[in-house]
Formats: sequence, structure tokens, C-alpha cells
Amino acid sequence: MRKIDLNCDLGESFGIYQIGRDNEILNYITSANIACGFHAGDPNVMQRTVAVAMEKNVQIGAHPGFQDIAGFGRRQIEISPNEAYNLVIYQIGALKAFVEVEGGKLHHVKPHGALYNMAASNSILAEAIAKAVRDVDQSLILYGLADSELTKAGETYGLQVFHEVFADRTYQADGMLTPRSASHAIITDENEALNQILMMINEGTVKSVEGTHVPIKADTVCIHGDNDHALAFAVKLHKALGL
Amino acid sequence: MRKIDLNCDLGESFGIYQIGRDNEILNYITSANIACGFHAGDPNVMQRTVAVAMEKNVQIGAHPGFQDIAGFGRRQIEISPNEAYNLVIYQIGALKAFVEVEGGKLHHVKPHGALYNMAASNSILAEAIAKAVRDVDQSLILYGLADSELTKAGETYGLQVFHEVFADRTYQADGMLTPRSASHAIITDENEALNQILMMINEGTVKSVEGTHVPIKADTVCIHGDNDHALAFAVKLHKALGL
Amino acid sequence: MRKIDLNCDLGESFGIYQIGRDNEILNYITSANIACGFHAGDPNVMQRTVAVAMEKNVQIGAHPGFQDIAGFGRRQIEISPNEAYNLVIYQIGALKAFVEVEGGKLHHVKPHGALYNMAASNSILAEAIAKAVRDVDQSLILYGLADSELTKAGETYGLQVFHEVFADRTYQADGMLTPRSASHAIITDENEALNQILMMINEGTVKSVEGTHVPIKADTVCIHGDNDHALAFAVKLHKALGL
Amino acid sequence: MRKIDLNCDLGESFGIYQIGRDNEILNYITSANIACGFHAGDPNVMQRTVAVAMEKNVQIGAHPGFQDIAGFGRRQIEISPNEAYNLVIYQIGALKAFVEVEGGKLHHVKPHGALYNMAASNSILAEAIAKAVRDVDQSLILYGLADSELTKAGETYGLQVFHEVFADRTYQADGMLTPRSASHAIITDENEALNQILMMINEGTVKSVEGTHVPIKADTVCIHGDNDHALAFAVKLHKALGL
Repeated sequence: MRKIDLNCDLGESFGIYQIGRDNEILNYITSANIACGFHAGDPNVMQRTVAVAMEKNVQIGAHPGFQDIAGFGRRQIEISPNEAYNLVIYQIGALKAFVEVEGGKLHHVKPHGALYNMAASNSILAEAIAKAVRDVDQSLILYGLADSELTKAGETYGLQVFHEVFADRTYQADGMLTPRSASHAIITDENEALNQILMMINEGTVKSVEGTHVPIKADTVCIHGDNDHALAFAVKLHKALGL
Repeated sequence: MRKIDLNCDLGESFGIYQIGRDNEILNYITSANIACGFHAGDPNVMQRTVAVAMEKNVQIGAHPGFQDIAGFGRRQIEISPNEAYNLVIYQIGALKAFVEVEGGKLHHVKPHGALYNMAASNSILAEAIAKAVRDVDQSLILYGLADSELTKAGETYGLQVFHEVFADRTYQADGMLTPRSASHAIITDENEALNQILMMINEGTVKSVEGTHVPIKADTVCIHGDNDHALAFAVKLHKALGL
Repeated sequence: MRKIDLNCDLGESFGIYQIGRDNEILNYITSANIACGFHAGDPNVMQRTVAVAMEKNVQIGAHPGFQDIAGFGRRQIEISPNEAYNLVIYQIGALKAFVEVEGGKLHHVKPHGALYNMAASNSILAEAIAKAVRDVDQSLILYGLADSELTKAGETYGLQVFHEVFADRTYQADGMLTPRSASHAIITDENEALNQILMMINEGTVKSVEGTHVPIKADTVCIHGDNDHALAFAVKLHKALGL
Repeated sequence: MRKIDLNCDLGESFGIYQIGRDNEILNYITSANIACGFHAGDPNVMQRTVAVAMEKNVQIGAHPGFQDIAGFGRRQIEISPNEAYNLVIYQIGALKAFVEVEGGKLHHVKPHGALYNMAASNSILAEAIAKAVRDVDQSLILYGLADSELTKAGETYGLQVFHEVFADRTYQADGMLTPRSASHAIITDENEALNQILMMINEGTVKSVEGTHVPIKADTVCIHGDNDHALAFAVKLHKALGL
């Protein structure tokens, strides 16, 4: 079976506010997207999260988002391409410093929340982000929604890209995610979620809600690590993928 | 005459709020301390300020401060050494990324406002800051108040340090600045200010308010660039120092 | 001639950052929209601005905006009706306290920037805002773009509304503002701007860019007070309106 | 037995970050200090917390703190008396609006964290806070550390004050709290804590760490509600006090 990356958003605590089970989930993932203080995280959380990820040999990525802790970076905010470019450079730079101080090397960049979603369909925004990543370090890998404007922009700028897929979301006949507003958007059955991932890896396809088999690129799977259920599924997936 | 560095705090605009005459003052200084978004500045201001400083061949330093835009980093905030360490790494990292994207190299670090003042007399805080600078890049120069705990800490951590002096402040017999609360703290006469700097460079001494001549190290002079008067003095000083 | 209200956004300074010529413009307006600390302003600026507005017998309104000082409240942010409701109550409450401490009474509420624009066309958002104003104090006047969803929502909730018009913007045949992206969106000739306002007041119509005369409600005129030119126009308008 | 008030800090969640067991602890307290968005809380959290406190007939107080969510208002920040005055008016105003929208009446004000501690010993700061409370509404009760500069300032400004005592902290022979840095600062035995409170109420004294009996005023007891242990103690205290 082809090796696949398992990634999870980490370092989302802020000040006295603790969320996520970072220390536990780090045992089952291969790469961590660490918040950079704009939508979550702060310098102290970043330092701790980088240190523990390195101890567990998990690859570290910057997870830049909108400057909106009150909205956790999930709210769309109007932004010009130039602002997006600077927003991303700033956050990569901050996290990169912590990684290098610990003797590591930053592995990838994955935009967060609303910035990720907007960049999946907005080619101009996607290119601003890809250019920022390339300009900081062209060996960084850009994570984006599989076959989206973001992965396309990454390739345009000569970056290695990781197409990201989801275990717990259904796909449409055109290869795009079923919008959350629709019924059947979420897969709640663990075996079904597991099978979807295995089929993506082994056969390069996903079964759409319409019943068709759709080709899909799958380099990395996004998983959650914030509750008992999510952790249990991470353990299963980790095992099933032979990681 | 010995060459001396002229530094100025720049990049202190924020969003739509514009302050400072960055473009003008850059013609007369040799190094710029650029705000990193915590007490002033934002990613867009940082990018622009770095670009124009490089055009004018001015050395670039990070100017980390407390996370307090409302107070412009001038209010003392309780902070542990570990928090200070992370605060400084984060901000250096963010600015360093912009400098490197533009093809430059970060030259120095100078703490801002209350952080600078606290580090001048608090050795534990000073060491946390010096360690942060060293851990990011041991070739960075640490700017601190001349003969203060901060310059001492920089030397302890093997950093090159620049002792900073002021043209418009008087000194006491012990070599420390006269507190702002005292009368005679500020020098308002331009010639007197100019002569103080020249004596510091040429003779390595400053005339204290008590009338004694006190030895002082002077590697860099801090000047202001926010009004007509300040700019005019910068022009004079630039010329008098043969820069 | 019918009396009309002249309003201006004030209290937009923040910390050390000063903008606007509040003290001067207050001589020529009849009502002030004071920023509430979310998109601009802070508690100290609010207190000072309220005090000086009261000295000059200018009516005081709350000017709530998105929580986005970095973007000055001009960037659209996704927000639910419930969030908008709470956002507006919070900001009205904060400003109202300063007004009442000074012995005054809050006169009106005018949403700021992106919140104002979104509420002009989004009826659900407009209703959330109008309900918040009504729930705090049903004697408050709601300022909104003339004949917009916001003024309509105000009327639905039993509020007195002030239809706001602009001297320096052109109108379309449907009574809406010409989008800023279009040519002819802005009126730069002072006499033309003055005549537009006088026609609105005296005849209740505006001449559209298509050349037709369109009926328009005009209870209040929004003017600027941030530069020499704006101040000079304010003086003229103040005189022409017999205020 | 004399009736005593049981108060607890509530509404400290922020955005997606949830802390505290507000709904549970509200069953056992008689007054709630609700965060106002500066050190914790946000407009949505404030609205929800006010609504549920009113449902449970718990008195509502404003809990103003430093503008420092990253530090949860626990870090001392330099502040002038005038800044403190405006800081407190702003936050009381914001919370008061939510209370009045729900048809209630604000009952008290208790400063939070570092602001509370600084005001306990700094009479100038204490007076600025007391004046702010008085200027907003002279019927508000000011909560402060028993026999501190804050309660004294409240009396100076003609406010009703509630002297606050702690069940889980030891006292010194001078009636002040044992500093947290000292051993024996914290009472971990529940019965000991309960007995301390009962003696305060019934006899008006507390047994100091030196063994002496010290007179103490006790109008309100501060309890915690953020974990199983704290909730269990709240239940016991609520019962022992006959509330």
C-alpha cells in the first residue's frame, strides 16, 4: 500500500484557553499543522507544540489563518492578494523561527479555515498564498484541498503540493466536497470513513454521493484530535494505513 | 573620527493609521528598527518598510515589543522569562521572513519601549531576550542601552552588542540616563545635543548633569523621525558624523 | 428651507494613533457618530470625544462596526444575525455609558463601514441591527443609507430613522449610489456637490447619472472631516444649509 | 446566621474557547461577576451568560479587567488613573446594556485579576475605579478585597461596598491575605475552608496563620466553578450557609 500522510491541526490553545489533545494525537499522525497566533495559538503555545512534535518525529507545518481569534479564523474576511501574501509570509516566518530554534526544519504550509476554503476556489488568492510560500522557501510543501485552485497555484509556482482528502466528508460526482449544508455531507460511520480513505489510496478513486467512482488525488488525510471519538478513529486509521 | 551607527524606530504605522516619516528619515540613518506587529506595525507595513530600507541600503533590525498596540508597547506588562523568550523569537522570525524574501539579511534586534527599559535593569529578563536572539541567529547584533543589563546579557550569550546612546537625554554621574521625571532630563538645544554625541564618539565620555566626565560606550545613536524638528536634527547629525 | 442634519464620523483615533480633525469639524456638524472601540477608538478617545461634542452641543450617536481595527471595519466579515445583534448592543452600551456619565443622552446609532454597507442590502442583517437598537432604547434614531434595507428594518421595529445621503457620491436611476468602481461615482466639484444636497432637501429629488430626476429621502448628510479640503466643504455646506 | 453573598466569576469563555461550568455553578451562587470582553468573554458570551443568570435569579455584576485576553487580565499593566476610569466605564456600559435588554438591573461591579489586586493596595487607582462606578450609577455595589484600598475608595465615593473574603486562602495577623508565594497560602482541606467562612460570618473574625484571631468584614465569598472539586465545594458552602 502506498504511504500516505496523516495531518492534524495542532497548537490551537491560546493563553489560558486549552483546546485539543495535542500530546495524544501526535502519536498517530505524521504531520502537524501548527497555528501561528493569528486565528489561534500564541508564542508560548507555538514553542511547546513545536518541541513536542519534534520529540515525536512528526513533520511540522505552518497553519496560517486570518487575524481573527474571536472567530477562530473560520469567518471569511475580505482580503487583497497583497494582504494575503504578507499575512502568510508573517505567519510562516514566526513559526519557522521556533522550528529552527529547536533544530528542526519547517516541512509544509497549510492555510487554515476560511483562508483554506477561499483559496480552494479563488485562483487569485490561491496564487498569492502559493507565491508567499515559494518566496519564503521553495522546498516547503503546500497542502491544499485535492484538485483545488490552491494545489494548482502551488504547482504553478513550482512547489511540491499535497492533495488533501477527508475521511469524514462525502464527495460529489465532480470530485468536490458535498457542501456541509447538504444532507449526507458528513460520514459518521467509522468503517465507511475508513473504507473511503483506503479506496482513495489503493484505487485513486472515491465513490460519490451520486454513486459514481471519481478519480481523486490523495497525498494527505486531515484528521481531528479534539475528542475521544476523534482520537479513537485516528488510532484505527493509523493502524489501517500501516503507519 | 570613529564611525557610528545612527538608528531609528520605523514601520510603526498600523492599518489605516500612519505615523512617522519613514521614507524621509531613511536617507539619514544607517540602521532601522522595524516594528513587528505586536506594539505597532502589521504584515503590510513590515513588507513595505523592509523593501524601502533595503532600497536605501539601511541595515534592518527587528524591534520586538509587548503585545499591546493600544499602549504602543510603552506600558510595563508582567512577563516571565520564558514568555519573553517566546515573544522575541516570534517577532524576530516574522520580520526575518520579510527581510529574506526581499533577498536581505537581518542585521540586529532592539527591544522596544517598556521591554527595552525593563531589560536595561532586569538581568533575568535581559538574559531571556539575549538567549532568544542567540538561538534564532548568533550573528545578530543586540542593541541595548549602553552598559545596561541587556548589553551585558548579550555578551554573556556571545552576541555582538551595540551600546546605544541618546543625543537628547542627559546622563548622571553613574553613567545612567537622568530619569525623565527629573528636570534637565531632556536636552532641547540642538548644538548641545550634537556636542554630546561628538564627545561620546571622540573621547568616549559624557558630561554628567553633576559636571563630571563619565566614560561611556557609544556604538549607535537613537534618533527620532516623526516631525520636522526631528528630521532637521537627523540631517545635521548625519552630516556632523560624516555619514 | 427644511432643516437637515449634518453628521460626521468622529473619535477614530486609537492609542497613540491620531486621525481626524474632530475639534474643528465639530463646529460645523449637528451630529457625531463616535467609534466604539471595535473598528476604531478606545475608551480614552471615546470619553474625550463625547465630552467635546457635548460642549459644542452636537448630538451624539454610537458608530458600531466590526471588531477589526487592523482593517478599520471596512472589510466584510461573515457574521450571523445573532452575532450582529450582540455586537451592536455591546458597542451602544459602551458609548451610552460615556454619554450618560457626562450628563447627556445618546441620540442615534449609525453602523460603520462594511457593517453599514452590508446592512443596506441584507434585510436579515439589517433587522438584527434594528432590533438591537430598539432593544437598548426605542427612542434612539437609526441612521442608514436612504431607502435601504436598514432604514426599512428600522421602521419595521418602530424606530425613527434618518435617511442618509451623500454630497460627494452620484446616484443611479434606481436611487442607489453608483458603485465606487464605476467612473462618475465620485463628485469632485464642490458646487456640484452642494447643489446636489440643496436639490435633495428643497425638491426631494436627485439627478441620476442617467439624467433622470429620482425621488430621494434626505434627513441627514454624511460629511468628512479629515483634511483641509473636507473641512472647507463642511464650512460651505454648513453655511448654505443655514445651520 | 447572617446572610452572605456567594459570588463567582462567570462568562469567561471566548469565541470557540469554552471554560467554566457556568450553568452548573449558577445553581449555588447568589451573584455572578460577568467578564466584559477585555480579559475574557465576548458579546455573544455576555448575552448568553446574562440571560441564564437572570433565569436563575442570580444577581449580575460587571467584571472589568485589563484589555489582555492573551494574559487573561492577570498581568499587571501600567495604567494611569484616567485610563482606569475610562476602562471601567466602558466595560460596565457594555455589560449594563445586555442586562437592561433582558429586563434586569446591574447589581454590582468587581474588578478582575490584576486590576483587582492593584486596586486593593493602590489608593489612587482604587479611587479612579470607584469614581467610574459611581459616575455610571451610584446604586451599584462595589466588590473589593475586605478592608482594602478599593473598599475604602468605594466608601469615599458614597458607594455601598461588599467586603470580599476567600474560603481557600489563609490570612495574616494584619488581616491581609497570605501571599500566594508563601507556604500555607492555600487551604486545601474543605472542612477547614468551610469553618473559616462560618467563623467570618458568625464571629466576624478569622484565625490568622500566626494563630491570632483577627477581625474581618465579610459580605461576600468568592468561589470557583471551573472543575468537579470546586463545584462540590460550592454545593457544600451553599448548604452550610443556608442559601
